[in-house]
Parts: sequence; structure tokens; C-alpha cells
Amino acid sequence: MTLASASPVTRIEQTGPADVRRLVTVQPGMCGPTALFAARVGDWTWESVSTVCGLDVFNAQDAQGRAAYLAFHYFRIRSGGHLTPERITFGDRLEVITRVFSQGRRSVLTLHRIRRLPQGATELDASFDLEEFHERPRPDCLYVENLNHWLTRGAGHTNVGLVHTPPVGFDHTRLPELPDVYSPKTPCRQARADHRFHDPATAHYTPSGDQLIVNHRVDVTRDINGVGLMYFASFLSIAEGALLELWRGLGRTDRAFLDRSLQDIRICYLGNADLDATLRLHLRLARDPENQHHERADILIQDTAGNRALAVASFRVHTAGPQ
Amino acid sequence: MTLASASPVTRIEQTGPADVRRLVTVQPGMCGPTALFAARVGDWTWESVSTVCGLDVFNAQDAQGRAAYLAFHYFRIRSGGHLTPERITFGDRLEVITRVFSQGRRSVLTLHRIRRLPQGATELDASFDLEEFHERPRPDCLYVENLNHWLTRGAGHTNVGLVHTPPVGFDHTRLPELPDVYSPKTPCRQARADHRFHDPATAHYTPSGDQLIVNHRVDVTRDINGVGLMYFASFLSIAEGALLELWRGLGRTDRAFLDRSLQDIRICYLGNADLDATLRLHLRLARDPENQHHERADILIQDTAGNRALAVASFRVHTAGPQ
Repeated sequence: MTLASASPVTRIEQTGPADVRRLVTVQPGMCGPTALFAARVGDWTWESVSTVCGLDVFNAQDAQGRAAYLAFHYFRIRSGGHLTPERITFGDRLEVITRVFSQGRRSVLTLHRIRRLPQGATELDASFDLEEFHERPRPDCLYVENLNHWLTRGAGHTNVGLVHTPPVGFDHTRLPELPDVYSPKTPCRQARADHRFHDPATAHYTPSGDQLIVNHRVDVTRDINGVGLMYFASFLSIAEGALLELWRGLGRTDRAFLDRSLQDIRICYLGNADLDATLRLHLRLARDPENQHHERADILIQDTAGNRALAVASFRVHTAGPQ
Repeated sequence: MTLASASPVTRIEQTGPADVRRLVTVQPGMCGPTALFAARVGDWTWESVSTVCGLDVFNAQDAQGRAAYLAFHYFRIRSGGHLTPERITFGDRLEVITRVFSQGRRSVLTLHRIRRLPQGATELDASFDLEEFHERPRPDCLYVENLNHWLTRGAGHTNVGLVHTPPVGFDHTRLPELPDVYSPKTPCRQARADHRFHDPATAHYTPSGDQLIVNHRVDVTRDINGVGLMYFASFLSIAEGALLELWRGLGRTDRAFLDRSLQDIRICYLGNADLDATLRLHLRLARDPENQHHERADILIQDTAGNRALAVASFRVHTAGPQ
């Protein structure tokens, strides 16, 4: 019995107390739709936390024996410029370097740097540099930042009012601290208060067109994960579906939608929803007055029951060709 | 630098000339929606063929240097009774044993047997038994059968009229032959000719209700894979979406839809579609006169342009509770 040598599709190594490195061959199930890519990165986050915290995140339980989920609270995919999610395709060899940071007993922050390896590359560049993430992203890299909270279902089977509680065996004390200046808590707090992200890089963008409102009935065949909660990646999928409506309303083609370049996606999750919920998405577009191909869409997702905010998202894209 | 020990989420071993064994921890990205589970199994198929055929399936090319895709032609998920796709959840430890069979130069057949490992199991039961698959499936196992064809895009960027051509370096001669009696070629031929599967196990089922027709515009945010083709798993998702409409039309709840038990899903892929296609799904329901909780839905998916058949599917389910 030998380890399969022809197909080391994924190799995972712990490279430090809070560091993990992966070599990944891109499979059909992790590229194409943005939500599929985000879903796979989300799995890497859970794996990475399991690895460095010595806890099986996939089977975590709180002190009362209830399942504890490392739920996504903030998910950001940021391109350094050239490597963007939609350019990742079958057979790409990716190097993913990951560091997990302490956020106290009830949360954890994970950063991934993703790079496409040149053909035949054997020497790896796996050093982790926090300033690189935030101050000088490399054009050939894609960065994913995840802030996760430990959540448990409260009474009954509802997905509303999940309880913020840590699981047994979760030890964050070995993890490095994240400097406050890089904490996503501030943008999340703003998103919760204002229902939009404040992004200095796009502060000069000017609103373009009216607000679009799109309703989405929760689709139990697509949106619900393996434990009956609305799946974090589905929010991205639902948001992109609404963005496509906005796009078509501007007279643009589906092909041009696929050819966009996704520069920065942020989403802050504020609540979950039950199976019979109808969501309402509010979308606003803004454009760079200096470059009409640079756009940002701000999206608020509400549960129509009580207008409860479920998520705040922002997509910054570069469009190609004439508008 | 040590191999991560806390998180051997997936371990892959080649256990024979045509055999692969995986130990998998179920992640959020591979359970919940049937399409997510099928997508992950599909990735295992490509990995398995890569492993035993000594070819990087994810980067395969034909003799002219065009990308060659190991496209799904037949995908069957069959439960032995108790383990069904919707019962697979976060943290389950799965043992997947896989054998790859010869189907000539231009196709390949892959069989997976999936079993949930009891907690703390150390001794594995990884023997492969072809008769078990077909004649005496174990109640605690789930079986997935894949027939894949090597396809290449013809001229231009269209997804219609893909060419059936093998890639350079694909060696099927080391693979075992599959006895004709177990070949899916016969059901596929019937599905192509009759636009439905002939299933002896449900031949006594009687039609229930009228045909339902549902249109689906191809959704570029969800349905298109990383190389611009309609993703095989999206067909399952689109079919389930239409089944949910049928279900609701019968006055049943979404909760009951999630609580169904998926016993047998077959889908035969006959063609791909372009980004601007609108699909038309024709659904028919049949029921076991001896047990009203046993149902089969037959689905034909056409491209409305020319009424070209794209896929034929069948879902056999057990419903729970009063109808």
C-alpha cells in the first residue's frame, strides 16, 4: 500500500504553531461560481483551525453537548490585481499559506494567501507577511480573510438567534495576536451599524443609478447546508444572482458578467434565516469617476420577516470592454 | 516541518493497480445540497483516474494541444438503504473505496463505495466487491457510479457539439474490464432513445399526476464551471429545483422535501449548453402502488433551442410522514 504519487491533489503541512501550507490542484468543484471557490476556502479555514488549535472543528461541541459551529462572520476575498477568483481554473496548482490569529475564546481569524505556482515550480515561497496582506498585496496573489464566531443553536430548531458560545477544547492561547489596526472588527461594526462597508479605496466612487431591490425565497435545494443552516457561501451566490439582474438592467451581457475581474469581495454575516424565509436584497452601484470600468456594488440582505439584516456585502470589480 | 496530524481531513492511498481508498472528514462544502455532494464525488473521480492511470486529468490535452475534459456522461448515486446523501453531515468520517474500470480509449468507468466510519474505528473494511455494488448493496453504504467520456471543444467557444477524443498519455490498458452485464452503456442508450431510464426496480410504479414543465435560464453565476461549460453538478441542482416546484404543487412543505430520503439518482448527460440557453425540464412522477411513500420522478432536460436533449434524470425517493 503506497501513498498515491500521481495525484497529490492536496498536500497539507503545518509549518509553524499557527501556520499551515497547502498545495492544491484546482478541481472542477472549487472553481467557476464564486460561491464554489469561497466554499472551498471556507473548508480550508476549518481545516486550518483544526490543525493549529488541536480541535476537530467539524465535530465541535459546547459544554452542554450541543454542536458548535465555527460560523463565518466576515469573509473577504481580495485580489492583489492579477490573480482573481474567476481566473482560477482546472488544473491550476495553488500554494495556499495560512495563518490563524487569536480573537479570544469565542472567535478566530484566519488569513490565506493564494498563489498560482508556475509550471514545474519546485521551490516555494511560503513565508507569511502580515504587512503584505494589508499594505502591499502582490499582483500575483489572492488574499482571503475570515473572521469566524463559535455559534450554537439556541432552543428548538430555528436558525434565528444563534448563541455565541465556545466549544470544549478550543485553545486560542497558542495563536498570535492580530494588531488592532488589521482587525476586521471595525469594518464589521460599521457594516452592522450603517448596512454598508466603508472602504477608503473607493470613497471617491460616485453613486450610479437607483437602488435595485430583489427578492429571493430561500431555496432548500441550494441554500441550506448539511446542518440545516443557511450556508455562508449561498449568501454570496444569492448576492451574485441579484448583481446579475442589476447588470442585465444596464443592458450588459451575461458573457461580460463572466469576464468581470473580481477585485475585492467583502461580506459580513449578521444573522441566519429559516427555511421558509424570503430575503430582500438592496443593491446600489457606485463608479470611479476617473475610470468607468471600476465599480463597486453595495448589497444589504434582509429577512423580509421583521426586516432583520442578515448580511452586508460589497463587490468591487473591474469591467472590461465598452460600457 | 511536520505533516499536520490533527487534521488528516482527506487521506488518499492507492491500494491496487486500479484501486484507491480515501478517508474523508465531511466538510461544509461537500454536504447539504445534493449537487455539492455530487460535485465532491466528481472531483474524487478525476483524482482516482489521475492516480491509477498515471495522467493528470485536471490538465489533460488532446494530440492537438486542446484541453481534454473527462466529462460526466452517467452519474448514479445509489443508497443501500440507510446511508443516503442528505444524511451525510459535518464531521462524518467517510471511507471511500474506489475502482476504475476500462471502457476503451475514450471513456472510463469509476465506482465508489462510501461508508460512514463508526466513531473510533481503526480497522477498515476496504475490500472491493463488484457484485456487492450491483446485487447486494449494504444498507450502511452509498454507491456512486460514474461513466466519463473524454471531450474536447470543437471549433470556437461554443459548448454545443463537443468532440469525443482521448487525451495524450491516457492508458486504460492497466484497468480491469467491467463485465457487460454491469455496464451503464445499456441504460444510457435507452435514456438517449426514450428520454427516460428503464428501471426494473420501479417498473411497477404507476404514473401520478400530469407532466410538469419548468423553464430554467442558464445562470452564469451558478451553472457554469471553471472552463466555461455547464457544470455537471448544476444539472442535478436545476433538476432538484424543478422537483421542488413539483413538490410544492402537491401541497407539500419545503421541510418535508429536505426530509426525503434519496434512494437512487441517475442522470445521463447527452449535451452541453451555451451561456444564453434556456432549458426546459419535463417532469413526471410515479408511485409504488404498494407503498405511497416510494416515488420516482423522471426528468428530461432540453435546450429550448431546437429541443435538443441535454440530460435524462431519475430520482427515486422515500418520503416520510403523511402525504
